Amino acid sequence: MRVDFTDLAPEPIAFLGQAAAIQLEFFEGLSRAVTTAPDLGAKEGLSAAAGVALRKHHALIAELRREGVEPVTMMQPFAAATDRFREITSGDDWYELLLGIHVTSGILDDFFARLAEGLPSDLGSRVRKVLDEAGAGGVLVRELSSAIADVPGLADRLALWGRSLVGDTLLVAKSALRTGGDDQAVEPVFTELIAEHTRRMDALGLTA
Amino acid sequence: MRVDFTDLAPEPIAFLGQAAAIQLEFFEGLSRAVTTAPDLGAKEGLSAAAGVALRKHHALIAELRREGVEPVTMMQPFAAATDRFREITSGDDWYELLLGIHVTSGILDDFFARLAEGLPSDLGSRVRKVLDEAGAGGVLVRELSSAIADVPGLADRLALWGRSLVGDTLLVAKSALRTGGDDQAVEPVFTELIAEHTRRMDALGLTA
Repeated sequence: MRVDFTDLAPEPIAFLGQAAAIQLEFFEGLSRAVTTAPDLGAKEGLSAAAGVALRKHHALIAELRREGVEPVTMMQPFAAATDRFREITSGDDWYELLLGIHVTSGILDDFFARLAEGLPSDLGSRVRKVLDEAGAGGVLVRELSSAIADVPGLADRLALWGRSLVGDTLLVAKSALRTGGDDQAVEPVFTELIAEHTRRMDALGLTA
Repeated sequence: MRVDFTDLAPEPIAFLGQAAAIQLEFFEGLSRAVTTAPDLGAKEGLSAAAGVALRKHHALIAELRREGVEPVTMMQPFAAATDRFREITSGDDWYELLLGIHVTSGILDDFFARLAEGLPSDLGSRVRKVLDEAGAGGVLVRELSSAIADVPGLADRLALWGRSLVGDTLLVAKSALRTGGDDQAVEPVFTELIAEHTRRMDALGLTA
């Protein structure tokens, strides 16, 4: 099964362009979370997480340069979809923004790490090392858990919001695949991505 | 003169707290510039500059920890003033935001680098090394120059905007001094800061 799935991995340059565009999007989301944070303590943790997303983005950009292509050109095909994705996942307030980043980066980081197994081995191991760096998860869980404990009704609203994000996020994942994701080999991977998502929601006490 | 001026340097912890708060503010401004950039090329350069500001912020935070204090507590006294400063310097559009960051970070980076000469020597040399890293200047000049060449009337509007920022920025600088800046030793330094500011505006073809 795994071999079938990694056969669906895109060409290295398309992979790197899309992965770099997505990390830039996570950086932008985390930056907005820093700017709109209610206190300096939250800013501290979130700015460190924004720094990690930026580092991942620039490491992927460096891999594109190493492949001899212009990074901006290679991210361009994903710009419109990324903008649309941001609009859908930004949410109505700071809490929804935080959960939006947590849910979408959780699913897409898992997905791109798996997909990286289909890259040429040297590149694949470098990319996996880049994507493996622990990012925003810790601080997002910390801030969200404390808000859910403090704000009446927030848990229900966030559970609904988290559920609404999964479909669009999986569409982004599918768009990265050679076949556009219309392949039986994809289903077991998506089932695992959703199981991981459910675990992340459970950890926040939210029904997935 | 220089000796007199550095005598006005605040206690190390107050210096580090304010300098860290200001770098966080530059990071937030640059992040907003990334998020609202008109194209991916601009995003690339600005996101790298945002990364530099964030690195400076975190290096100053690390120095606060080394002094045995809680960084968030030490930045807190500067939070309200920094928020107000942001409101004043953000501008009405992307170009004003870019020039706002260029003018205010130009003046304040110069100022804090000079002030760092009044810190205990080990700390002072580490802090100067942190602040010396080339930051946003290059990309801001590149983006602003090309916009000024392309957009009719922009040069006049930006010249006016740049002038309006100097007073508030110097107030932030003065607030860092032991005496609140009411000292003859300060004047020659401020004259130099304004001369550097004029050079930066000249380089953009803007009347200071």
